[in-house]
Amino acid sequence: MYRSHNCGELNASHINTEVTLAGWVQKSRDKGFMNWVDLRDRYGITQLIFDESRTEKTVFELAKTLGREFVIQVKGTVIERESKNTTIPTGEIEILVSEMTILNAALTPPFTIEDETDGGEDIRMKYRYLDIRRNPVKNSLLFRHKVAMEVRKYLSDLDFCEVETPYLIKSTPEGARDFVVPSRMNEGQFYALPQSPQTFKQLLMVGGMDKYFQIVKCFRDEDLRADRQPEFTQIDCEMAFVEQEDILNVFEGLTRHLLKEIKGVEVAKFPRITYDYAMKTYGNDKPDIRFGMEFGELNAVAQHKDFPVFNTAELVVGIAVPGAGNYTRKEIDALIDWVKRPQIGASGMVYVKCNDDGTYKSSVDKFYDQDDLAHWAKATQAQPGDMIFVLSGPANKTRGQLSALRMELATRLGLRKPDEFAPLWVVDFPLLEFDEESGRYHAMHHPFTSPKPEDINLLATEPGKVRANAYDMVLNGNEIGGGSIRIHDKATQELMFKYLGFTPEEAKAQFGFLMDAFQFGAPPHGGLAFGLDRLVAILGGQETIRDFIAFPKNNSGRDVMIDAPSTIDDAQLKELHIQLNIQA
Amino acid sequence: MYRSHNCGELNASHINTEVTLAGWVQKSRDKGFMNWVDLRDRYGITQLIFDESRTEKTVFELAKTLGREFVIQVKGTVIERESKNTTIPTGEIEILVSEMTILNAALTPPFTIEDETDGGEDIRMKYRYLDIRRNPVKNSLLFRHKVAMEVRKYLSDLDFCEVETPYLIKSTPEGARDFVVPSRMNEGQFYALPQSPQTFKQLLMVGGMDKYFQIVKCFRDEDLRADRQPEFTQIDCEMAFVEQEDILNVFEGLTRHLLKEIKGVEVAKFPRITYDYAMKTYGNDKPDIRFGMEFGELNAVAQHKDFPVFNTAELVVGIAVPGAGNYTRKEIDALIDWVKRPQIGASGMVYVKCNDDGTYKSSVDKFYDQDDLAHWAKATQAQPGDMIFVLSGPANKTRGQLSALRMELATRLGLRKPDEFAPLWVVDFPLLEFDEESGRYHAMHHPFTSPKPEDINLLATEPGKVRANAYDMVLNGNEIGGGSIRIHDKATQELMFKYLGFTPEEAKAQFGFLMDAFQFGAPPHGGLAFGLDRLVAILGGQETIRDFIAFPKNNSGRDVMIDAPSTIDDAQLKELHIQLNIQA
Repeated sequence: MYRSHNCGELNASHINTEVTLAGWVQKSRDKGFMNWVDLRDRYGITQLIFDESRTEKTVFELAKTLGREFVIQVKGTVIERESKNTTIPTGEIEILVSEMTILNAALTPPFTIEDETDGGEDIRMKYRYLDIRRNPVKNSLLFRHKVAMEVRKYLSDLDFCEVETPYLIKSTPEGARDFVVPSRMNEGQFYALPQSPQTFKQLLMVGGMDKYFQIVKCFRDEDLRADRQPEFTQIDCEMAFVEQEDILNVFEGLTRHLLKEIKGVEVAKFPRITYDYAMKTYGNDKPDIRFGMEFGELNAVAQHKDFPVFNTAELVVGIAVPGAGNYTRKEIDALIDWVKRPQIGASGMVYVKCNDDGTYKSSVDKFYDQDDLAHWAKATQAQPGDMIFVLSGPANKTRGQLSALRMELATRLGLRKPDEFAPLWVVDFPLLEFDEESGRYHAMHHPFTSPKPEDINLLATEPGKVRANAYDMVLNGNEIGGGSIRIHDKATQELMFKYLGFTPEEAKAQFGFLMDAFQFGAPPHGGLAFGLDRLVAILGGQETIRDFIAFPKNNSGRDVMIDAPSTIDDAQLKELHIQLNIQA
Repeated sequence: MYRSHNCGELNASHINTEVTLAGWVQKSRDKGFMNWVDLRDRYGITQLIFDESRTEKTVFELAKTLGREFVIQVKGTVIERESKNTTIPTGEIEILVSEMTILNAALTPPFTIEDETDGGEDIRMKYRYLDIRRNPVKNSLLFRHKVAMEVRKYLSDLDFCEVETPYLIKSTPEGARDFVVPSRMNEGQFYALPQSPQTFKQLLMVGGMDKYFQIVKCFRDEDLRADRQPEFTQIDCEMAFVEQEDILNVFEGLTRHLLKEIKGVEVAKFPRITYDYAMKTYGNDKPDIRFGMEFGELNAVAQHKDFPVFNTAELVVGIAVPGAGNYTRKEIDALIDWVKRPQIGASGMVYVKCNDDGTYKSSVDKFYDQDDLAHWAKATQAQPGDMIFVLSGPANKTRGQLSALRMELATRLGLRKPDEFAPLWVVDFPLLEFDEESGRYHAMHHPFTSPKPEDINLLATEPGKVRANAYDMVLNGNEIGGGSIRIHDKATQELMFKYLGFTPEEAKAQFGFLMDAFQFGAPPHGGLAFGLDRLVAILGGQETIRDFIAFPKNNSGRDVMIDAPSTIDDAQLKELHIQLNIQA
């Protein structure tokens, strides 16, 4: 061992102890006759002192050659510091060094290894191993491990069994976003990397495993939006002989446990709202409920006057922004411009100032009187001092626009507090959603989701109205988990495939093994999956997942550190029975 | 919830309780007026009773329709059994059923769901979800989970941090056995699936993570020998600021912990032997030391007479087989035939019976006298009643042959006891091994392994003699883990690549990121990886890994259950910028 202690554990109780430390030179301060070096490792920083009058000359001189990030080993005595540093655990002591070995020199790092670094995203990714030395990244990775361990312990204690499912599986045309792997031994054939272990966990239920979980990498070859990764990690879970209620209880318990153990936050029973309620009230199926600004629908109180914009709209809907009644005309105009940006797409926005004296001042005063505006205030729960913003247009689109505004204003007003946690369940998701592009219905969750029994008869006539036993867990405006009760009989599964546009032959070719399995005694079952990257980031109080992933890829799916993907040999291509097909 | 209790927990203390159970019909015994059904779930079996005089007629009749593996839910009362079964925890009670629902019917399974099944390997793999219902497979998966949890707890408690490394990495021509993944977004380029997270864990050490582990899938596209899988799981570990001794101590501690916690077996400090010693003494670098039969080299005592076979041999070597002195001529001839099989390849075998009276009877009595044979007995530690078998020929080949014989005889003699555990370390592996085919040296462990400092000067002159700081943990004749102290400076790494036949350009193109990293302050580091599949199987007392993997692939790398790999669409190929290249 290169050390007797690490750099985070020595304190006044160790004074006069002989110790050996090893680590990186964080910085040094050379006062000529005295030289201090901060020695850093994963556990902390310990101050070393080299003193012309007390340190042997060769060691003293060697210390002057140390650059940032040199790796050194020192022996010395723990002594009391003259000027103590109360901000770090080792701040009462320093090491009077008697021997030193430079274990490895270091080039000057391309960015500073400090909590606030001068390095941009690109350079930090290229030298990710240096970035990981910085506390914000290092602590994020340690935090992720802690969360994963707590998840495993909690679920194991509840008799869940972690089962590893295969990574080399079968491609399904349904999910065109498979990464595939050419098989050398099976000419012309390909494995796919799993987008999730969905069918395998269902087969484990058919196999009687009863309670399954797995923290598992999944893969999706999508055009990467910001903060998406081609490989991501799920906490994947499934249970047999359960109803939706059982699953909600178990995983609410898990999340509550994590919040308590990891964050010290006690959370009451999670609210449950339906998908329809979420869309009407927040314009969003993953509402952030750390703050209000719930939607007030104004059709009844805004379509009775001569304002054609509202009168022709499918939906008139507003939110009351707390304490924003004093926004200036300039601020309001900026917000109107904000909602009119193409990314949001509103054609305009009406505002109503709720004055402290109970009167109203709006941008549509020539159409609406104080009494009308009072109704609007009531519908949006506006208080004196608030500002009501109103959008109108096609219902779904308008809800989306107002939801974006709501989130933007909450951010600006500091209402999205990273240390506050407001989880909830959104339930009763639609089974199917209509895809304009392909002109047909797709499974909203996935094709194995069970329709609510009472809605099955709507499948043939109004498929869009069929609700599923599907649920999402939402935390602070993010979907952190989602799942469903599954179909567990062949007939219903065949029906689903039919409504999803599969021919019987296609269904059999792709999922025949699952439907076969359903015939050999499949129990009722259901489950859910959490996105671990996102969950960890939110628990860590961060908006982006990248620092919680050791070696993330950039938005082109590249690992810029190792420079992957890359070309491969012709010989290897040949062995895999493929050749390149590059468009000139 | 479909049940109030599971099928393994009810006992006499529950008598008169109303319960609801759900599970699979294991079997039923219909006596006409009375019908017993064994209901099974993951946790056990509970006996149900349907009694013409006490059960409602519809329920009683329905029970007669139940087939094997039907999934049912029953309500009823726990009552005392008339004839108790003391072999199962629920054997004192049965459930007098009052209500029953068939949750799912089942076709007759293609093999019996019993501990000893009538199903062959192929059919069990095709219906793996049914195979998993059988105790031997189910319990193996539960056992695997238990081992993995213990590993994680032990290492976490020692401050190891589990870090997920990427699965989509870079292909290295060195390891031609990469599975590759065509990139859609990066035309003509490929990711590779990791054969191990080796370079990433080293970069984590450069990044100051200090102690890393990960239970992680790895991939190798090899022609599959029996009991190998294209995807397999490693317990991958790395530590910074350590020497070999530290690593051996930590992971010996882990293994000792597992043996104690999982198997209740206390093991003393692991023996350590060198690679050279292992090869000389057992003909094998992963010796099974649960039994003796150590090699006795006989050159000095067998090459002084007129027996040309021995006199011209590089090595004459024997083992004493305990208690085998009474083997018949027929048995001996069968063993001689066994070692002459092409898989073993010996050209013949000499035997010496050690009679109880201290005399010897050998197949070479016309060349050697009793005194000679006494020397042989001494060299092989033979006792009266033993049989000495002697092989001769080129040293390495002959050792391999004798090792095979040693293992075969141990198996026949019942010396490889599954409940006995004899771990050891094999250390001082050679750094390089000569590959006859390519006519050059390859890294025996991998190119990042550190040569022993005292042997570095041999690299240029006698590369085959350079020893590495590399070690294997061996358990019951299996290598269950292996690792090394790594190179952590650019100059030595460049030297290694040179000796391994890389041009500087090739080294930079493939591993430039690692050598760059070494320049920014890399600490001394090392680690090891355990093969989890094998470790779990051995701890579970099994020789084969397949039952410890939920969904294994067959020897052609196929998953016969889901029928993967499979063909993919032309459109998908096109999107991935590849086309098939099938040999007519």
